[in-house]
Amino acid sequence: MMKTMKKLKMGMIGGGPGAFIGAIHRNAALMDGLIELVAGVFSSNPEKSRQAGEELMLDPSRVYSHYDELFAKELELPEEQRIDIVCIVTPNNVHYDPAKKALEAGFHVVLDKPMTLTYEEAVSLYKCIQTSSSLFCLTHTYTGYPMIKQMKQMIAEGAIGTVKKVYVEYPQGWLYRLLEHENKQASWRTDPARNGKAGCFGDIGTHAFNMAEYVTGLEVTAICASLHTKVEGRYIDDDGALLLQFSNSANGVLTASQINTGAENNLKIRVYGDKGGLEWEQELNNSLVARWPDRPDEVFRAGTSYLGSLAQANTRTPAGHPEGYIEAFANIYRNFARTIYAKRKGVVPLPEWLDFPGAEDGIRGMAFIDLVLKSNQSSQKWTPFEVLKD
Amino acid sequence: MMKTMKKLKMGMIGGGPGAFIGAIHRNAALMDGLIELVAGVFSSNPEKSRQAGEELMLDPSRVYSHYDELFAKELELPEEQRIDIVCIVTPNNVHYDPAKKALEAGFHVVLDKPMTLTYEEAVSLYKCIQTSSSLFCLTHTYTGYPMIKQMKQMIAEGAIGTVKKVYVEYPQGWLYRLLEHENKQASWRTDPARNGKAGCFGDIGTHAFNMAEYVTGLEVTAICASLHTKVEGRYIDDDGALLLQFSNSANGVLTASQINTGAENNLKIRVYGDKGGLEWEQELNNSLVARWPDRPDEVFRAGTSYLGSLAQANTRTPAGHPEGYIEAFANIYRNFARTIYAKRKGVVPLPEWLDFPGAEDGIRGMAFIDLVLKSNQSSQKWTPFEVLKD
Amino acid sequence: MMKTMKKLKMGMIGGGPGAFIGAIHRNAALMDGLIELVAGVFSSNPEKSRQAGEELMLDPSRVYSHYDELFAKELELPEEQRIDIVCIVTPNNVHYDPAKKALEAGFHVVLDKPMTLTYEEAVSLYKCIQTSSSLFCLTHTYTGYPMIKQMKQMIAEGAIGTVKKVYVEYPQGWLYRLLEHENKQASWRTDPARNGKAGCFGDIGTHAFNMAEYVTGLEVTAICASLHTKVEGRYIDDDGALLLQFSNSANGVLTASQINTGAENNLKIRVYGDKGGLEWEQELNNSLVARWPDRPDEVFRAGTSYLGSLAQANTRTPAGHPEGYIEAFANIYRNFARTIYAKRKGVVPLPEWLDFPGAEDGIRGMAFIDLVLKSNQSSQKWTPFEVLKD
Amino acid sequence: MMKTMKKLKMGMIGGGPGAFIGAIHRNAALMDGLIELVAGVFSSNPEKSRQAGEELMLDPSRVYSHYDELFAKELELPEEQRIDIVCIVTPNNVHYDPAKKALEAGFHVVLDKPMTLTYEEAVSLYKCIQTSSSLFCLTHTYTGYPMIKQMKQMIAEGAIGTVKKVYVEYPQGWLYRLLEHENKQASWRTDPARNGKAGCFGDIGTHAFNMAEYVTGLEVTAICASLHTKVEGRYIDDDGALLLQFSNSANGVLTASQINTGAENNLKIRVYGDKGGLEWEQELNNSLVARWPDRPDEVFRAGTSYLGSLAQANTRTPAGHPEGYIEAFANIYRNFARTIYAKRKGVVPLPEWLDFPGAEDGIRGMAFIDLVLKSNQSSQKWTPFEVLKD
Repeated sequence: MMKTMKKLKMGMIGGGPGAFIGAIHRNAALMDGLIELVAGVFSSNPEKSRQAGEELMLDPSRVYSHYDELFAKELELPEEQRIDIVCIVTPNNVHYDPAKKALEAGFHVVLDKPMTLTYEEAVSLYKCIQTSSSLFCLTHTYTGYPMIKQMKQMIAEGAIGTVKKVYVEYPQGWLYRLLEHENKQASWRTDPARNGKAGCFGDIGTHAFNMAEYVTGLEVTAICASLHTKVEGRYIDDDGALLLQFSNSANGVLTASQINTGAENNLKIRVYGDKGGLEWEQELNNSLVARWPDRPDEVFRAGTSYLGSLAQANTRTPAGHPEGYIEAFANIYRNFARTIYAKRKGVVPLPEWLDFPGAEDGIRGMAFIDLVLKSNQSSQKWTPFEVLKD
Repeated sequence: MMKTMKKLKMGMIGGGPGAFIGAIHRNAALMDGLIELVAGVFSSNPEKSRQAGEELMLDPSRVYSHYDELFAKELELPEEQRIDIVCIVTPNNVHYDPAKKALEAGFHVVLDKPMTLTYEEAVSLYKCIQTSSSLFCLTHTYTGYPMIKQMKQMIAEGAIGTVKKVYVEYPQGWLYRLLEHENKQASWRTDPARNGKAGCFGDIGTHAFNMAEYVTGLEVTAICASLHTKVEGRYIDDDGALLLQFSNSANGVLTASQINTGAENNLKIRVYGDKGGLEWEQELNNSLVARWPDRPDEVFRAGTSYLGSLAQANTRTPAGHPEGYIEAFANIYRNFARTIYAKRKGVVPLPEWLDFPGAEDGIRGMAFIDLVLKSNQSSQKWTPFEVLKD
Repeated sequence: MMKTMKKLKMGMIGGGPGAFIGAIHRNAALMDGLIELVAGVFSSNPEKSRQAGEELMLDPSRVYSHYDELFAKELELPEEQRIDIVCIVTPNNVHYDPAKKALEAGFHVVLDKPMTLTYEEAVSLYKCIQTSSSLFCLTHTYTGYPMIKQMKQMIAEGAIGTVKKVYVEYPQGWLYRLLEHENKQASWRTDPARNGKAGCFGDIGTHAFNMAEYVTGLEVTAICASLHTKVEGRYIDDDGALLLQFSNSANGVLTASQINTGAENNLKIRVYGDKGGLEWEQELNNSLVARWPDRPDEVFRAGTSYLGSLAQANTRTPAGHPEGYIEAFANIYRNFARTIYAKRKGVVPLPEWLDFPGAEDGIRGMAFIDLVLKSNQSSQKWTPFEVLKD
Repeated sequence: MMKTMKKLKMGMIGGGPGAFIGAIHRNAALMDGLIELVAGVFSSNPEKSRQAGEELMLDPSRVYSHYDELFAKELELPEEQRIDIVCIVTPNNVHYDPAKKALEAGFHVVLDKPMTLTYEEAVSLYKCIQTSSSLFCLTHTYTGYPMIKQMKQMIAEGAIGTVKKVYVEYPQGWLYRLLEHENKQASWRTDPARNGKAGCFGDIGTHAFNMAEYVTGLEVTAICASLHTKVEGRYIDDDGALLLQFSNSANGVLTASQINTGAENNLKIRVYGDKGGLEWEQELNNSLVARWPDRPDEVFRAGTSYLGSLAQANTRTPAGHPEGYIEAFANIYRNFARTIYAKRKGVVPLPEWLDFPGAEDGIRGMAFIDLVLKSNQSSQKWTPFEVLKD
């Protein structure tokens, strides 16, 4: 960083009491000392927002009641004091409007996934991002893991040959029974009005899909979907499986569930090429297993000296000092921040810094949600994947 | 065992030089001291058969050139010397005829899976078994593992509640390239004339299917299949995935592949109910993982005192002394032998002894193969599973 | 937190270019938004210190050349701007003097372990802490892991009965060859003048010792040590093993090595009582394995609802979202900060907050180092452990 | 095998009702079709012996009441019918006499470990073996595992450089409470008159010691022992730990316990050299982990094509089809049988066949037991290891 650099200032929308992901965003954003939280709207209830700001030890004058107020008031501040980044961690029905307004107001935006409530909103936001001079980041957390980056780089460099088969699975169990009325997270994530039309596939299926495309560098071209609502009284899918076709004629299987009772969060991806295979699972995130047809399996470990540049740029600790979910999140924030600094200084950001998820991931994710629902309702086996950006 | 009991005498068809599974059958059959190998036809080449018999230290007069000769000559022997069991470990095109003739000659039959080359043969053999007074066993090896039996028993007893979701996967990598001309196993297993119409799904897909039905006690009622031949020059599927519907409205996913480069043989099954989940994988076969929504995961271990009767009846060693694949195989032989002894003594076999795979598994497996091929060729998503036994 | 609370302000001593642990301290201190870094002396070379401060985007006027200057200048600032906490992350020969002076100047102190260069210094610092009104924290990181806290709580509550046997091992491999001249970390950590008399046992043996006492709540009463220098040309132990006796007549074994070639950092502790056993290893830090004589093993997982209060108070993410080394470190900082806040507000801190390592851990660790060296030189098997604090 | 070969005939001493290891010996001996059980003395109680023989479906005329009778009567039989091998699986106080007599009668002997009740007996039996023309095998089972053989071969070939450090541990928990009066195994294994002076260290400590020497090819030259009896009312050690010195100046640690409550049988050995490390544990016996300072860890897997000749000669199944404890045992029997056949045919046995434990392992094991007890009683740290064979 340069002599005159200051920490980037962030304002948060959402993340008040009872929220899960807001606190994680704060941990991740703060950890590396590049970003500070200075403002926010933490709840649609002004009193709750105020209390949250107080707990976060913010200046009360910068804790707002609505994001429109946030944007307006911050813009009135001198540029040096004003926030640089808006971070949006609200339910999905409150993604589009604040994101669009933040970009239009000239702020950089970090948005939790999925991009928007509907595909139409996504197209509109996508266009807005294309024409904006601000930077946009969508927090597909799992792409921030160093060993996922190693996996991506090894595949790109041909280590396993031509990709033939992709398995990605995202098993959770927390919605194994109807807890919509007991649990704030369950409440909005199963409500189509706040979460969007797809439940499990909007929430975690999109992560699995994003992971498959990110790691392989391939695009999904057709799917065959079967979604289910396994818990009586629920309004939205809580389980499903897809067969996949990829752009290079590879095949795949994607499963996601929130009713795998007892399962925690073990997103897992396995990719096999004609020379070898690579396997990673989130609950053992510091290892990447490589399988070969004629020599011993290898276990690549985070923090070692033999990893590629992409993994190296996304670790903090030496081997054997585990990093985890918050660090994966922090990698996205750190790369985003480094790219902002580079932009300010007028230098070209390193390719490793630019490797954070953004508008393309967002719009493909929203198209994926619509596609899954369409395929699920179809009696035909295959539904082609087309992403219209207009 | 009773005072006047003798070891059961076995004759083997197949299992000569270059074979894989024949030697395993011998290890398994001999291990528990209930069965002895006394005769055989080890190759369609009489000289090779003779040599194999010599290596196995058999009486040369009981090493034959054809199974017709085996049956005829053994029937000429006094009943006390004659073989009791015929074990058939030939390629699939030589299953039906010797099995049928063995049963008709009054021998008990152990047959390697899949049951036959075609579904028509299976129906015919099935009928033959129904009317025979001999016992029939089909070696779906993986159902012989004690922790699989524990899993079956726990599910049957309601430990995880109503089954909602089943994942079964069978990843292999050994056919990742065209080695049809280098490797005897690869040669016949990819040749429709000897293996049957389905490659990967005939060989290992049937194991996965059998496992799913065995463990859950449910029946598959419809499937959606996508098969692939990922290695150029191959005549038969080497990879695929299915979506499944089960008789109790549970859903499932079944994958099988022989091009998961570097993968060995890690058949894995996970079943989730509305109270908990159970997970087992073959390469860690002595453990069964139970997951619960609100208390610690549990690891049930083979050889412990807290297991159910089905697992208890299928172990030899105390906890921490790993049993493996050959013991799983041997469990099938031991249960089959115990059932034969019970029959001879006119006593009712224990339910644990009767728990070996047989005609129903066989015909359902053959119906499954046809179904998979039919669904694969269909543009419709779902193909119902009907098993016609006439 | 209260209405008028501000973030705690921290000044760092050490942690400049080439340092490892300084950056981790910063990640950990910043992550939870309770502490901000505002000042520091990052190197004994003023220019390097200045550059480090610039990279950390600190106000240049608060980047100092010596810790004496740090203390003096900060004391001149108005209390509201002044640092609250001094964090010391220098080599061991620069622990005692700045820690003592910081306490005397009224700052709270976070000190990296081991406490000091010599036992004499430790006694002096210990006395100073006893009479100071400031708080003191020694960063025995591994005690910050939630599943270690769960292990401690379960043992304290009698879950495994009376402790009979303790195994603790700390295997590293990075010093498997002489890299003293290539690597800054290796250079000072193998230099008695900067590191102290014990190498491996000063650096990581103390962690293992502290862990054993922390988790069991017992004290080591005698040891039998065998230390080795396995790499030619090295001045200090790089490997060793101890037999241990504990205060309740339990026995133990402690091993530590830096020449377990290829090993990373898998600190592991296993404790067996007369009712069960508990096992934890750092590279799988989010799991705690419980073993029982007559029922299935259990795996307790971080972030679940069934954990005790101590683990609950030291997590940020739900189950299946791995936390790691930096979060363990951050737990220590967060508990320290919460205790400072409580003290300021005049309220009694929760017991969970007070659970951070301090002066007792420090002086026992330094006594342990002397004891290990004494026992190693003795031809007698057992050397009693006495800690003189005067 | 040659044209005129017959199966080897075995008579068993011990292994009747309530025994554990006898049944395992039978599984192992029979599995490969080289050995058949034809005679035995299964209990010191003639009626129990007779019943056991009946259950094993032996000819009643070859089920004896005492081993003296066994030897005498078998010698009266024509050589072709007579037993070739005597297998002794009695408690340790009934090892020496039958083994010596069997050798003197010209039978080959398979003896369960430890060799004898006392060191004096061992010396006498050792001399007897040296002058006998019969072959002698001591079943240190764990050396029969293919991945242990791979480990031995890799170390011998220099894969990890000069060995510097050896850790071997043998944790069991089954004697965590006093069950001497409930359990036949516990009864004799804790009775000095039947088991010998050392309990845990006679039973499993000897396995750990043998493993360390077998795998490394080094000899232990001095030890420092601390044994304990942790369960009140027990007459013999049930836990302990040793520091070790090896012949090449490597160091080691050996722990063995039967009061690690909940532990099963996970014998584990880790060896580190100046180029890399190798780690194996029995409960994951089909994998061998190699660790390297500057490249990914490797996992060598049983049944693969890339293994060395020693492992290759000791497997039956392809990779991913787990072999276990009984197969490890069977490897010892198979190698012993192949060596007997080679001897008969007058050909030189392959080195892989000769790799079964024998008299040297036996006498060193007995010397180890005495040494451990001597060191335990000494107040001096180190006790040198000398093996007097006269």
